Amino acid sequence: VYKIIIVGAGNVAWHLAIELEKQGHHITEVYSRHVANAKLLSQQLYEARATNQLDFLASDADIALVAVADDALGEVVAALRLPPDVILAHTSGTQTMEILKVSTENIGVFYPLQTFTKSKNISFAAIPICIEAANKEALDSLGELATSLSQEVYVLDSEQRKALHIAAVVACNFTNHLLGIAKEILDDKDMDFEMLFPLIQETISKAMSMNPKDAQTGPAKRGDTKVISKHLLYLEEYPTYKAIYQTITDSIANK
Amino acid sequence: VYKIIIVGAGNVAWHLAIELEKQGHHITEVYSRHVANAKLLSQQLYEARATNQLDFLASDADIALVAVADDALGEVVAALRLPPDVILAHTSGTQTMEILKVSTENIGVFYPLQTFTKSKNISFAAIPICIEAANKEALDSLGELATSLSQEVYVLDSEQRKALHIAAVVACNFTNHLLGIAKEILDDKDMDFEMLFPLIQETISKAMSMNPKDAQTGPAKRGDTKVISKHLLYLEEYPTYKAIYQTITDSIANK
Repeated sequence: VYKIIIVGAGNVAWHLAIELEKQGHHITEVYSRHVANAKLLSQQLYEARATNQLDFLASDADIALVAVADDALGEVVAALRLPPDVILAHTSGTQTMEILKVSTENIGVFYPLQTFTKSKNISFAAIPICIEAANKEALDSLGELATSLSQEVYVLDSEQRKALHIAAVVACNFTNHLLGIAKEILDDKDMDFEMLFPLIQETISKAMSMNPKDAQTGPAKRGDTKVISKHLLYLEEYPTYKAIYQTITDSIANK
Repeated sequence: VYKIIIVGAGNVAWHLAIELEKQGHHITEVYSRHVANAKLLSQQLYEARATNQLDFLASDADIALVAVADDALGEVVAALRLPPDVILAHTSGTQTMEILKVSTENIGVFYPLQTFTKSKNISFAAIPICIEAANKEALDSLGELATSLSQEVYVLDSEQRKALHIAAVVACNFTNHLLGIAKEILDDKDMDFEMLFPLIQETISKAMSMNPKDAQTGPAKRGDTKVISKHLLYLEEYPTYKAIYQTITDSIANK
C-alpha cells in the first residue's frame, strides 16, 4: 500500500487515482492548475487534498504520479517541490524518463497503455502498464504499484515506450478515425453504421488470431485497379478521405 | 429450399456454398475455370457436379450465384448459358446489377458483407446480406434465400451498395493494414503485438457504442504538434507508414 500524490486531473489522472484507491492505496494530494478540477477528482477519493500549488515538501507520500498533457510536463516538473525520498514518475507514452531529472534523481515512468474517457468505466486488470526507473528501489516500488492494478506489467526503456506509443496511435487513434469515415460514408447514403459491426468484429478477431499481414484482403491486396478507380471516383466528394484511401491502398499494394 | 448453381470456387463461393447446404438448400453445380478447384469445393458438398463449362441449359436449378473476381465477372456472365427462369445474381460489392443483363432479365445481387478466408470458419447468422433485384419475383426469392442464412437482410440499390463497399474497405481492409503496421513497429523493437490487444478491443468497443467522432483521442485530436513531430521523426525509417501517419493526422486535425 502506497501513499500517492496525483499531479493532474485529466482522463488518465482521473481513472488512475480512483483505481489506485480501489486497490487499497491512498491518494494524499491531487493537483490541478485549476483547483476546481482538482476538487472534482478529490471528491471521488477518500481524503485527498485538492491543490493548485506544486509544493509538496510537507507531504508524507511515497510516490508522485504526474499525469498532465505532454506539453505541460516540463513546466510542471520544474515547479514541483518534493521530499527527497519520494519517487517521481510520469504517465506519458512519449516523454523520456530524464525529463523528470530537474526535480529529483528518484525517477521513473508509469505508463498505462489504454484510451481513457472520464465518462466510461474501464477494467484495469488487463491494461498493460509499462514501467521504467532510474534505480532498483524505484523500479521495485513502481513494479509493485503496477502489479496491484494489472496482471500485464512490462519493463520498457524509453525508446521501446516511444515505439509502443506510435503503434498505439496507429492501431487505435487512427483505426477509430477510419471507423468514423466509414460511418460518415454510410450516413450520407442513409445506411446504418451497425451494418458494419459483424465485419469489424471479424476483422479485429482475425488480425489478433492470425498475423494481420496474412489476414489482409480487399481490392488493394488483390491489385484490383478497376475497383480502386471506382472508389477513388466516388471519394471525389471527400478529398481528405480520398487522400487516405490512396495512401493506404499504395501501402497495401507495395507489400 | 432452392436448387443453386455456384459459379466460382474462391473464398466467397466456398463459404456460401457450404452454408447454403447447411441450411437445407441444394447445390447442383459448381463452376470454376480450373475444374480441379471446382472439385475441391464440390467434395465439401452433397452431390454438386464440378465443371469448367458455363453452359447450364440442362440444369434444373432455381438460382445461379456468381461469386468470381470483379474483373472476371463481365466475361463469365457473357459466356453463361442458363434456362430462362433461373434467377442470376452476383455477390459483388462493387458491380452494378445491370452487368448481368447480357445473360438474362431475371437478375439480382446477393452481397454478403463479410471478409472470408477459406481456412477460417464463420457464423453466417449475423452477416448482413444485401440484396437487389430487377423484378419482384427475383427479389422475393433472393430475400428468402438471404433470410435462410442471416437475420440481417437489407435491400440496397447499387449506389448504396457501392458506398457500403467503400465503407467496408475503409473500416476493415484499411484497419487491418494499420494493425499490421503497429505489429511491425513493435516487432522491430522486440515487443509483442499482444500488448496492444486490450487497447484495440477498447477502441472498437468505444467506436461501436459511441459515435467514433466523439471517441477520438490522441495527439492529432489534441493538436499536440510536439508529439506528432517526434513520431514523424521516428517514422523516417518507414517512409510509407510516415505518409499514412501524416495523412490521417491531417484528417483528424481538420475535423
